Amino acid sequence: MASEKKKKRPRSEPTSDSEEPDWDPPSRSKSRPSNPSSSSSSNKALSFKKLLKPDSAILDTLKKLYDSHHQNPNPNPNPTSLSDLSLPFPCREVSDLPPSSVERAIESTILAAASSILSGAGFSFSVPGRGPSNQLYVPELDRIVLKDKSSSRSFSSLSTVRKAAVTARILSLIHQLCLKNIHVTKRDLFYTDVKLFGDQSQSDTVLDDVSCMLGCTRSSLNVVASEKGVVVGRLVFSDDGDRIDCTKMGVGGKAIPPNIDRVSDLESDALFILLVEKDAAFMRLAEDRFYNRFPCIIVTAKGQPDVATRLFLRKMKTELRLPVLALVDSDPYGLKILSVYMCGSKNMSYDSSNLTTPDIKWLGIRPSDLDKYHIPEQCRLAMTEQDIKTGRDLLEEDFVKKNPGWVEELGLMVKTKQKAEIQALSSFGFQYLSEVYLPLKIQQQDWL
Amino acid sequence: MASEKKKKRPRSEPTSDSEEPDWDPPSRSKSRPSNPSSSSSSNKALSFKKLLKPDSAILDTLKKLYDSHHQNPNPNPNPTSLSDLSLPFPCREVSDLPPSSVERAIESTILAAASSILSGAGFSFSVPGRGPSNQLYVPELDRIVLKDKSSSRSFSSLSTVRKAAVTARILSLIHQLCLKNIHVTKRDLFYTDVKLFGDQSQSDTVLDDVSCMLGCTRSSLNVVASEKGVVVGRLVFSDDGDRIDCTKMGVGGKAIPPNIDRVSDLESDALFILLVEKDAAFMRLAEDRFYNRFPCIIVTAKGQPDVATRLFLRKMKTELRLPVLALVDSDPYGLKILSVYMCGSKNMSYDSSNLTTPDIKWLGIRPSDLDKYHIPEQCRLAMTEQDIKTGRDLLEEDFVKKNPGWVEELGLMVKTKQKAEIQALSSFGFQYLSEVYLPLKIQQQDWL
Repeated sequence: MASEKKKKRPRSEPTSDSEEPDWDPPSRSKSRPSNPSSSSSSNKALSFKKLLKPDSAILDTLKKLYDSHHQNPNPNPNPTSLSDLSLPFPCREVSDLPPSSVERAIESTILAAASSILSGAGFSFSVPGRGPSNQLYVPELDRIVLKDKSSSRSFSSLSTVRKAAVTARILSLIHQLCLKNIHVTKRDLFYTDVKLFGDQSQSDTVLDDVSCMLGCTRSSLNVVASEKGVVVGRLVFSDDGDRIDCTKMGVGGKAIPPNIDRVSDLESDALFILLVEKDAAFMRLAEDRFYNRFPCIIVTAKGQPDVATRLFLRKMKTELRLPVLALVDSDPYGLKILSVYMCGSKNMSYDSSNLTTPDIKWLGIRPSDLDKYHIPEQCRLAMTEQDIKTGRDLLEEDFVKKNPGWVEELGLMVKTKQKAEIQALSSFGFQYLSEVYLPLKIQQQDWL
Repeated sequence: MASEKKKKRPRSEPTSDSEEPDWDPPSRSKSRPSNPSSSSSSNKALSFKKLLKPDSAILDTLKKLYDSHHQNPNPNPNPTSLSDLSLPFPCREVSDLPPSSVERAIESTILAAASSILSGAGFSFSVPGRGPSNQLYVPELDRIVLKDKSSSRSFSSLSTVRKAAVTARILSLIHQLCLKNIHVTKRDLFYTDVKLFGDQSQSDTVLDDVSCMLGCTRSSLNVVASEKGVVVGRLVFSDDGDRIDCTKMGVGGKAIPPNIDRVSDLESDALFILLVEKDAAFMRLAEDRFYNRFPCIIVTAKGQPDVATRLFLRKMKTELRLPVLALVDSDPYGLKILSVYMCGSKNMSYDSSNLTTPDIKWLGIRPSDLDKYHIPEQCRLAMTEQDIKTGRDLLEEDFVKKNPGWVEELGLMVKTKQKAEIQALSSFGFQYLSEVYLPLKIQQQDWL
């Protein structure tokens, strides 16, 4: 709890770029242009602390965010699906299917092949194209989907006989997995028939083909990625029947399960989800039990988001209808990571509707925070040529362009050529992140 | 449970290299020299399955292992410490200290410096050497320790003034951490004074120096590594006061906490710890709830062991007095990983007694398993030149040389120039690892 009461100020509406913030940057007038000494840094940190209102006021802000999101979690209620749009050409998406449906889908594919063989026509699979020419960014959905181009993979053609055989083998293996309802990794799948597959990229590719052919997600095939993410905070869920209370997971947190279909019965009294890029920040917030002061669920994939964490985040957001605030490094890769969570990666675009979490708010560290929070010069890093190029490329991406606030921030980053990690906040004290920066950002509704 | 009863066979004593195993490799006579088809592979897998005794017999084997270990967890009861050995020169080791003791140690270091300054002599820190010339492998301890060489880090010398200042700053930061009893990462520590430290390698180095100076482990300084490991199975423990039951952690498992000093009150009815190199194998065993069939604790660091997982494994083994069986890839890196768990890494040798877990048994995948279990040729990989060099180097390492069985296995690997991943067992079916390979290895007491 903040120890001092602050004078009551009228609550501002959510800040937009044109509005004045409801506070004056505290020590801007005092800030020396160069070489801030560590004592002036401490003063600045202290003056920001004085801006903090009592927790009850910050909680009110969060409740407002929660309410506005909970009543209307998406700009379009009931997530718009492809079928709601009258696109001028057919598009393809996959959906989650239970193992029994995948089984049946495989059986009918094979029966069709068998009857085609019996009729003397040999057999071939119709395989949807997944290449760039068949990909399309749909602004209404804010994600990449596949157009409906398919090609025939015939067993009787020299150029496709191998791939047809691999496809048949993968279909048979997936059928086994669904029958037993067990989960394996792509690597396991590869090793079941190294002689046929040759190398793992071949079985991986055909696995994605099969996903598209059957119209189901890769997780529905019971082939999972390895787990990397952890979660802690105000969430109770079932992992393979075991009830997990994430407020009672110590400082280590709960490892996010690799197989999302074993995750069920989510319950939460959280007001928001805090998505964190790095595990150092996660650890700080878990140890300080940040979620007890501000009810939230804290989740991290420890860097590049893996499929399991993306599925888990999406499941939390849609089932619990919670807003998501993101805390990432102030560099182009922080934004890239947001883009993977929000829009998906290009090579799994057929599955974008199941893997992506739209409407994540960029809380921090934002390029404008560096000056606003007086991050000392020596804690900022110069962007490399590659960083700057990545930043410029991002400015051309649809998912950035549709958010003017993001364009402005990214523009500032590319202009100042400075980046900063979340840990740069440690220069004001180890607990500055959890005790000052995050509460103040939330109080100011300072997200984009 | 195995479904068929097997004819009773006398239980063999633990197999050593000279003894005949208590079973005949089942399909060796039938095995074709080349191009094993997948149906012959299935036959082989089936024939191994027939060798399995009922679970009760395998459990008896495990109980014997447990008893022999539990009564005498180490060849030397009460782990031999440096002071038990009459080495011809003094050696240095660090130990776990509570935050209050670290605080006091820092205060007396600083008081000594202050009184030295007041007496007109300036001040200097006495810093133990950590370089190779000050390192020593002690066979009785089976780990690397530091000899007692120290150097003086004086504030009044141009060559050491910077390092002396950095050391004083780190001491002051650690003092704060211990006062508040919070934990941070090395990266956080670096960011508190980027201007002074310059780059992170400098603060990291001095952090290890301070650890040696104060005679305590790095975890005692409340500076922790990021977490990577997960644990599942027959273990109940407290993580920062929260009671965690690892049989109720679903398939995802519990993330191992980064700060080992918050881990306490371990309880277990396991008969052994199964240390797994990769998370794919961990996932298989967790989903199959292997620990319900054979009471064990399953732990993995997902590749290279991190400090948190090493500390956790050591704590489990010493407090619960359980034997540790290791499942790693059959390649030089699998053995390297074992060596890090068992003997530590060279740059943290001052902390070797707290980080290492001696007496880990190499269960599999061993080079001799490739032929014994008829791993198909196409699932084996050719070792690269670098692999072979690493293997040859390992043959010169003390920790390998003292175990004749390991020398023989590694010799075979280098000779055949073949390696194999744990996942290669998937060629016999996805659950072959948990249903046949591991139970049979345990039944045969086939560890080294």
